[in-house]
This record gives sequence, structure tokens and C-alpha cells, in this order.
Amino acid sequence: MKAKIYISLKDGILDPQGKTVEHALSVLGFTDVRGVRMGKYLELSLKPGPIETVKKSVESMCEKLLANTVIESYRYELEPEG
Amino acid sequence: MKAKIYISLKDGILDPQGKTVEHALSVLGFTDVRGVRMGKYLELSLKPGPIETVKKSVESMCEKLLANTVIESYRYELEPEG
Repeated sequence: MKAKIYISLKDGILDPQGKTVEHALSVLGFTDVRGVRMGKYLELSLKPGPIETVKKSVESMCEKLLANTVIESYRYELEPEG
Repeated sequence: MKAKIYISLKDGILDPQGKTVEHALSVLGFTDVRGVRMGKYLELSLKPGPIETVKKSVESMCEKLLANTVIESYRYELEPEG
């Protein structure tokens, strides 16, 4: 089973990396960009199991290690391995 | 209009960051994890425009700046700002 996890900074948290990318895009001529927020994307391969167990496990991973929940929010999708 | 861009390493490209996360998860007791691939996630706010123009623009940004297409692949979704 595959878990796709998206971690992004919460609204209102400064994102210097995003600002840098935004500036670089404008220098390259992409002037239609009004804002960039930078985040992390993880793909996890997991042993198959009952969906509720896997969900709890992924949430626990995010809370304990992957996301800093003070400043970051996360969402995830589960899908069959393919 | 909002563009969500997901950039991940192509298959076969070594991912030390992912390996480190995988190891950390196993140390924390998450032994069901068989693999982790680490990528980037960007949210762009864009001026509204014809969908085809926006698509071309986003693809151009990815090719020119955001993704290293030698080792990384990208995909994106467009959605109305909300």
C-alpha cells in the first residue's frame, strides 16, 4: 500500500524558501505568480493492512516525525501499490 | 488560480533523504514501512487566465526552474483559488 503525504507550512507562517522561488520565477519572466508556498512531499511504501490501522499509523508518523505540527499541516492519501 | 506541483525523484535515483526518514521511522517502531521517497510540494498562486495558457506556463516553470528533469519528475494540478 502506498501513502502520499503532503506537508505544508500553515497560513501565516513565513516561508523564505517560497519567497525565494517566487523571486526567481519573476526574474525568469513569470510575472503571473502571486505567491509560492513550499512544502514537502513523501511517498511511503507500506505493508498492506486494514485501512483504519494504516491510517492511524500514517497519522502517528506525521505527528511524531514527519511534520512539525506547530507550524506545519499535513494531509495524506492512501492508494494500492501499483 | 492555484497550482499544486509535486516533484519527486525518478525511479532508480538514490534518495538519501528518504533512506534517512525510513531509518528514523523504523527506530521509532514503524516497522511496516518498506520504503520512503522524499520530494517537494509547491503551491503557486497564479493570476487567472485561459487554462491552456496557465498549463503551459506551469510546465515551463517546472522545466526551467522548479524541477531538475534529469533526475526528477513532476506532476501538477490546477484548481480555482479558494
